[in-house]
Amino acid sequence: MKNYSIAKSRRIRSSPYTSRIERQGVTAYTVYNHMLLPAAFGSIEDSCDHLKKDVQVWDVAAERQVEISGVDAAKLVQLMTCRDLSKSKIGRCYYCPIIDDDGNLVNDPVILKIADDKWWISIADSDVIFFAKGLASGNNFRVKIFEPNVDIIAIQGPKSFSLMEKVFGKKITELKFFGFDYYEFKGVKHLIARSGWSKQGGFEIYVENTQSGLDLYDHFFEIGKEFNLKPGCPNLIERIESGLLSYGNDFDNNDNPFECGFEKYVNLDSEVQFLGKQKLKEIKAAGIKRKLMGIYIETDKISLTKSLKIKDDKGNFIGELRSACYSPHFKKVIGIAMINEPYCKPLATGVIEIEGNSLSVKVCDLPFI
Amino acid sequence: MKNYSIAKSRRIRSSPYTSRIERQGVTAYTVYNHMLLPAAFGSIEDSCDHLKKDVQVWDVAAERQVEISGVDAAKLVQLMTCRDLSKSKIGRCYYCPIIDDDGNLVNDPVILKIADDKWWISIADSDVIFFAKGLASGNNFRVKIFEPNVDIIAIQGPKSFSLMEKVFGKKITELKFFGFDYYEFKGVKHLIARSGWSKQGGFEIYVENTQSGLDLYDHFFEIGKEFNLKPGCPNLIERIESGLLSYGNDFDNNDNPFECGFEKYVNLDSEVQFLGKQKLKEIKAAGIKRKLMGIYIETDKISLTKSLKIKDDKGNFIGELRSACYSPHFKKVIGIAMINEPYCKPLATGVIEIEGNSLSVKVCDLPFI
Repeated sequence: MKNYSIAKSRRIRSSPYTSRIERQGVTAYTVYNHMLLPAAFGSIEDSCDHLKKDVQVWDVAAERQVEISGVDAAKLVQLMTCRDLSKSKIGRCYYCPIIDDDGNLVNDPVILKIADDKWWISIADSDVIFFAKGLASGNNFRVKIFEPNVDIIAIQGPKSFSLMEKVFGKKITELKFFGFDYYEFKGVKHLIARSGWSKQGGFEIYVENTQSGLDLYDHFFEIGKEFNLKPGCPNLIERIESGLLSYGNDFDNNDNPFECGFEKYVNLDSEVQFLGKQKLKEIKAAGIKRKLMGIYIETDKISLTKSLKIKDDKGNFIGELRSACYSPHFKKVIGIAMINEPYCKPLATGVIEIEGNSLSVKVCDLPFI
Repeated sequence: MKNYSIAKSRRIRSSPYTSRIERQGVTAYTVYNHMLLPAAFGSIEDSCDHLKKDVQVWDVAAERQVEISGVDAAKLVQLMTCRDLSKSKIGRCYYCPIIDDDGNLVNDPVILKIADDKWWISIADSDVIFFAKGLASGNNFRVKIFEPNVDIIAIQGPKSFSLMEKVFGKKITELKFFGFDYYEFKGVKHLIARSGWSKQGGFEIYVENTQSGLDLYDHFFEIGKEFNLKPGCPNLIERIESGLLSYGNDFDNNDNPFECGFEKYVNLDSEVQFLGKQKLKEIKAAGIKRKLMGIYIETDKISLTKSLKIKDDKGNFIGELRSACYSPHFKKVIGIAMINEPYCKPLATGVIEIEGNSLSVKVCDLPFI
């Protein structure tokens, strides 16, 4: 597969850390929320191994925040998600599908309740800010909506706990999963959540004070040698093995939350009002006709640049592969696919064409590991 | 400047033409509306020269459409733009700033009136679809909003008229600027507008029938030799020289239309209702404090990856450079900058730091040519 350069411009924003990761050997970028998001530091296989064993610092400034504040803030946030937030607590993160009037997905952010009247929506790759602004305008909500100056650094991997303890003290190891609190680095407080886009454990530092964030970034690498700290980024292999879904890759505004395995975040029996509630009740009652599933393909390489059709042995369309990678752990290609009934169950089989070869596909549940 | 690869995935969609432009020598991509947009076929200087003399075919599928139809379609479209569309005609394109409740810009699409109750918003790089969906939901409008399967091919350059006449006949040369109509290619009708993101003249073909579009693309190159037809893409040099603004580069959701020179599209005295109308009246009455201007820099190269500060001779901030290129025509660097009062007028001067060198900046009106 030939490589193509990324043409940089202000429209595809750099982060405060871009010059650092370029000195540290980033080799590929993707674009996410109109920003550069590092996609590789050399081999993603090696980086995946390292992430599972040690600890990495990630520039994930592309995970932008939509700040919603004001007297109607909670009402607007609830209107956008099918997850019941009526009992949500300050200091907690909530994974929340954002749903439109048709019951389809707009995004799958983590929502942070900063205060009763102040929320951060930490978004995947779509402009939730304009959905929020449209809804606020149409409903005459008294809210302020903007993108605050927040650039996230993620610390991911099993040794992230030791690294973070060394910088912030014992207290940070007591932070519960999807909790957040404020921790001090050289006199500056940072909001830190125990979260991140891997299943290897870790933290996300929501940096508002850019200079302190840069100092912190450098400090990690000054003291990180004993933990074998390396720069990294969200890893395609690790995230597919772990079944972490990606908006735009695995699902988008043409899919509903039931098709994507988000049932437990769809609170149709709650009292709260949200967009698409009636539509989702109808979809649930009718039953879904397709579902996101894992698949195995017996081959040793793949590079997906668009979805690929999966067919049955008679050549009928039964689904499409949306993300895939070669997994050194499984010693085959694994992928995430939207599969039609009745094939969306473990052990169902199909056929996929990859570069002229017909390969057999085996369906499985997610996550792989 | 080191090159970095673009990591492809389904989230950054290919177009139907991607495999063709890769065979034809595309070297760099940008990402626009979650799609690959070609950014270079080798030297952008050579490509700029060719665009000004001959004719190019561009894969601009990344200019996505938001289709709004239904009884309240016209009302919703008008609500989103400060341009008075009450006298708009079917078969015409309208350049329309999209404005939020704060009077700031959301996008600057070309809007096509397909029918009284069916519009296409041909968008720049932000998710207008979610703004429209939010507004429709909040206002209880009876509309259908979706992204239709439309992939634009642009034919740009002075010889585009002869090339298009050879394919579609004499009639297409009679199409007026920003008009559109339907023209047949081998039995398939295509919506074609006289428009495009260059000032060299040309057409945009809104391809709905993908296979016919691919056949048409190939046909252009079969017959294009006599016009010296080459593949191309929106050209950084040509668009800056021509003063064609780019959402995300030259302006964004932090800027208002008066600051961006869009006065003639802000119809505050009209009867129509649109978002931010009162706010825009206040901004107009108070007068703007900064404005997008052209600048000249006496140097022979630049590669902008983010905005750069412009200062006065005492070191005070007076503006920021947002887009720039070396122009072989002017034999210096030209750029588009947001400049504060009182420096936002021709012949004002400033200083900019580029790679450690202090260079003098001269302000001018847009467009350059």
